[in-house]
Amino acid sequence: MKVVITGGTGFLGLRLARAILAHGTLYGASGAPEAIDEMILFDNVTPPERPDGLDERVEIVGGDISDRDLVMRLIAGDSLSVFHFASVVSAGAEQDFDLALKVNLDGGINVLEAARAAPGLPRVVFTSSLAVFGGSAMPDTVSDDTKITPMTTYGMTKVVNELLLNDYTRKGFLDGRGARLPTVIIRPGKPNKAASGFASGVFREPLSGIDYELPVSNGTRMAVSGYRTVVEGILTLHEAASSAIGDDRSVNLPSISLTVAEMIEGLGRVAGGRPLGRVIAAPDAAIQAICDGWPGREEAPRALALGLPADADLDSIIRAYIEDYGDA
Amino acid sequence: MKVVITGGTGFLGLRLARAILAHGTLYGASGAPEAIDEMILFDNVTPPERPDGLDERVEIVGGDISDRDLVMRLIAGDSLSVFHFASVVSAGAEQDFDLALKVNLDGGINVLEAARAAPGLPRVVFTSSLAVFGGSAMPDTVSDDTKITPMTTYGMTKVVNELLLNDYTRKGFLDGRGARLPTVIIRPGKPNKAASGFASGVFREPLSGIDYELPVSNGTRMAVSGYRTVVEGILTLHEAASSAIGDDRSVNLPSISLTVAEMIEGLGRVAGGRPLGRVIAAPDAAIQAICDGWPGREEAPRALALGLPADADLDSIIRAYIEDYGDA
Repeated sequence: MKVVITGGTGFLGLRLARAILAHGTLYGASGAPEAIDEMILFDNVTPPERPDGLDERVEIVGGDISDRDLVMRLIAGDSLSVFHFASVVSAGAEQDFDLALKVNLDGGINVLEAARAAPGLPRVVFTSSLAVFGGSAMPDTVSDDTKITPMTTYGMTKVVNELLLNDYTRKGFLDGRGARLPTVIIRPGKPNKAASGFASGVFREPLSGIDYELPVSNGTRMAVSGYRTVVEGILTLHEAASSAIGDDRSVNLPSISLTVAEMIEGLGRVAGGRPLGRVIAAPDAAIQAICDGWPGREEAPRALALGLPADADLDSIIRAYIEDYGDA
Repeated sequence: MKVVITGGTGFLGLRLARAILAHGTLYGASGAPEAIDEMILFDNVTPPERPDGLDERVEIVGGDISDRDLVMRLIAGDSLSVFHFASVVSAGAEQDFDLALKVNLDGGINVLEAARAAPGLPRVVFTSSLAVFGGSAMPDTVSDDTKITPMTTYGMTKVVNELLLNDYTRKGFLDGRGARLPTVIIRPGKPNKAASGFASGVFREPLSGIDYELPVSNGTRMAVSGYRTVVEGILTLHEAASSAIGDDRSVNLPSISLTVAEMIEGLGRVAGGRPLGRVIAAPDAAIQAICDGWPGREEAPRALALGLPADADLDSIIRAYIEDYGDA
């Protein structure tokens, strides 16, 4: 079978690609596990060097997801699965509304239309976000049945894709599943335009011995999950029986709720004798406002019932990062 | 000021046009009531004869709402209000998914983009529908805070427009308000492709002395409202202070909950000595399935708090129809 990952050369896309290759099979159009013959990592920017851990089955393709013809050519094949990560992220979407509509809405419909045109019922896993929740009526703790009223353009485009995914699935055009991601930590490398980037930077930069300018207050509360857990959750959601998901195809992914102060304490606890850069307050009102609008706590009963994993605690997330990237 | 009504030559569009002309003013860009200088009724099909009750300020324009350039030309002006009714309706959208996306999604974005391009903050009233609600987790009675999981393409496109309206409003591009309409009764004339059409036909046809073939069971429960009440509600929503609506811009409109058996009983009660056509069972599984998926009961606390009217009872709705159309 063929696997297409949009946003496939991003941090999560690449980790998922390697996890799928290691897993060896995915449930395909036949209704049984099928070997991965071909994998396309599609992204708007492609890395200058081929990333590690990708064998000859993997092709990296650069291009614009709002180009319908290109997306139709790439997302095609007799037995096909799609993981749709490509997205303008939160702060980026607040800065450029038109780009967010083009990439996230037009791009999302292109992915769905391409999967619809393929034979059978391709499984399409869409990475949504807890940023779909928001608004003055949002409860302190959100769950799968909380009304969705996003207060960012990013969150709005995510829930529109969820609704389209539901309807394409209901109509029998494809087999869609949506994963509402918490803030994924600890991302290595350079920060992107996600307003939640501090929740990685506050660990990554001090661990690299670099002082970190923190754009939000210590009391800011975030629902976070480790990248290993999130990638395993996405894979588990793909493999779940369609009937177990029901007519509402998107689920909250499990997370742990932490204040920034708790993140900093956790780093001190786990880092042991490592020299750490300092965390310096550098408030950014725009970032603070976006993060304050998101849910700081959530429940994910549907994902847990489907067997998706949850993090044990913050310490294990930090230890995994040190193991994976500590020497980089 | 200038008023544009999309779907403006439809039943509700025309009734609203006449109500606005009778009202004389609308809250405009100045923040105060302004006289109506110009009104455009835009629709895909235009009536062969000019409808009654429209003076020289009113221009009827035919065209395709998915034509961005045309919509940008029509929805323009220094002081502007828009009422966006144009839509592929429920059964029609189930039959032609691609047309529903083109008219309801592309068309909806065209309306929003045109209002965004106009100076100031044009008020844009979008007619959504209780069909946004649905799914296996839907409670018996829905309210403004119920999670929205539509199970028709029509409902999906309506909630996508609601979400876009929220975000265009939040960004300061326009001043959007959404009205989730119940099933509006009693529509005169020929039936359209709405699955809810029986809730008008079951009154209209017998009152005309014609037998009516009822596509749903007598136990089917619907949330309905009279057209006078709905038009007044839409007008009241336009005139409401923006701050009174808050960050979730769409509200349920009030309705009364009736089974088909109660509709038939009510007609017998109000019709008095009039000769009535018979109601004959002619089950249509597709229509029944769509209607069974909708909420039969709802609450509309936000609309009531904004001063929108509610029907007293079914009898007054039937009497109003006989008064308005009984001799037609």
